[in-house]
Amino acid sequence: MKVLLRISFLGTNYCGYQVQPNGVTVQQKLNEATKDLFGYDCDIIGCSRTDSGVHANEFCVTVTKRKESFLDTSIPVDKIPQALSVRLPEDISVMSAEEVSEDFHPRYDVKYKEYVYKIWNRPWRDPFLAGRSWHCPKPVSKEGLENMKIAASKLVGTHDFASYMAADSKIKDTVRTVYETEITEENGLITFRVSANGFLYNMVRIFVGTLMDVAYERIAPEDIEKITEARDRMAAGSTARPEGLFLNRVVY
Amino acid sequence: MKVLLRISFLGTNYCGYQVQPNGVTVQQKLNEATKDLFGYDCDIIGCSRTDSGVHANEFCVTVTKRKESFLDTSIPVDKIPQALSVRLPEDISVMSAEEVSEDFHPRYDVKYKEYVYKIWNRPWRDPFLAGRSWHCPKPVSKEGLENMKIAASKLVGTHDFASYMAADSKIKDTVRTVYETEITEENGLITFRVSANGFLYNMVRIFVGTLMDVAYERIAPEDIEKITEARDRMAAGSTARPEGLFLNRVVY
Repeated sequence: MKVLLRISFLGTNYCGYQVQPNGVTVQQKLNEATKDLFGYDCDIIGCSRTDSGVHANEFCVTVTKRKESFLDTSIPVDKIPQALSVRLPEDISVMSAEEVSEDFHPRYDVKYKEYVYKIWNRPWRDPFLAGRSWHCPKPVSKEGLENMKIAASKLVGTHDFASYMAADSKIKDTVRTVYETEITEENGLITFRVSANGFLYNMVRIFVGTLMDVAYERIAPEDIEKITEARDRMAAGSTARPEGLFLNRVVY
Repeated sequence: MKVLLRISFLGTNYCGYQVQPNGVTVQQKLNEATKDLFGYDCDIIGCSRTDSGVHANEFCVTVTKRKESFLDTSIPVDKIPQALSVRLPEDISVMSAEEVSEDFHPRYDVKYKEYVYKIWNRPWRDPFLAGRSWHCPKPVSKEGLENMKIAASKLVGTHDFASYMAADSKIKDTVRTVYETEITEENGLITFRVSANGFLYNMVRIFVGTLMDVAYERIAPEDIEKITEARDRMAAGSTARPEGLFLNRVVY
């Protein structure tokens, strides 16, 4: 069998998901835990890369025996989450495990993903949101918030999102379909939610940097269309900090 | 002037609020920050003690020059929060400062306080709630949750709460008035909210330990009255872990 794990992790202490030569990653911790549990090296394939400090309320990986298309174990699949979680640090958790077909691919088979980005918008810092939000202390006005909502709605649809891709990315096909965006505010916490069939490198963080420029009246909401049409990274706002970003849902 | 600060802190790294001979406390960090800002030792008086690992969404302290009833400074009161926050670690924040009369006392003048207690009730651990909730992995049934609500409602009123006080507490007057209790559940997170004119040592944590016994059908909800009437610590449930407890509001 091939096993799909749904995990969650607090990204603060990791250099992102993907194994790197320098720095501890989530994938490395999963490599160690699966080897300890199953007794052999495994191939762990993730649903996406994440940057250093980015979090996941839900992230998916498949586990197979290294260089094989299956996992060789007598452990019942429903016991795997708990058995792996005790072998992982407190900031990584395995929520569920299920058997998938051998040709299932955790990245290519994604129908859509949803990200959430949190902005703490009070003058004082919140100890509970440190490392889990972007602190923008300058108050966003009611009008600024309404303009953010208008601007966010203009990101929905099938567009060439090249303006919202990190300049050093080598991806050629920059057309993606954004299904839904939402801006909400509650007691000083502004939350941006976005779902799409795929995301370019830093796309959500550049969306958020641009939306905060709208919030602070540096960009008018109606300019979003022009920014998108420019297909030029220079046209959009800055890249928002990584620690406010959460991969929230992965749908197959 | 005498200054009242509203602060918040993540209690994970502290041995509670009150200065202790061993271990770092929130009060100690406030002593250091105020001395650095004002240039002299200050008296910091808090609205209550908190145990190691307990958090505060809101906690109040007064600041005066040591052995004086006033604070001697040219810093405008509305600039104090930011000036102190930069001198405090990331897990302590000063949200606001206001001038109060010299006879104001941050503990004796409290009208009521509200605590919140968070219980994470899913089989898997949540990396974002680690150290910020009590993980009870066994699912609470719908009926168990309804019974918790009934039991919680029976704690409201003016009662002798001796059954819900740590056995080693030396307090003699154990009568308090609980104004309101509330149990809510959302996506596996059970939240208990309670406000009262005062709280005995460990009272909220013993309430929660007892309510979880109700949730798991070890105590019937109608037994709460008998437990209260017993005025005996042995009659109530266990003391819930400290890390799920948050002082949430202090009203003068």
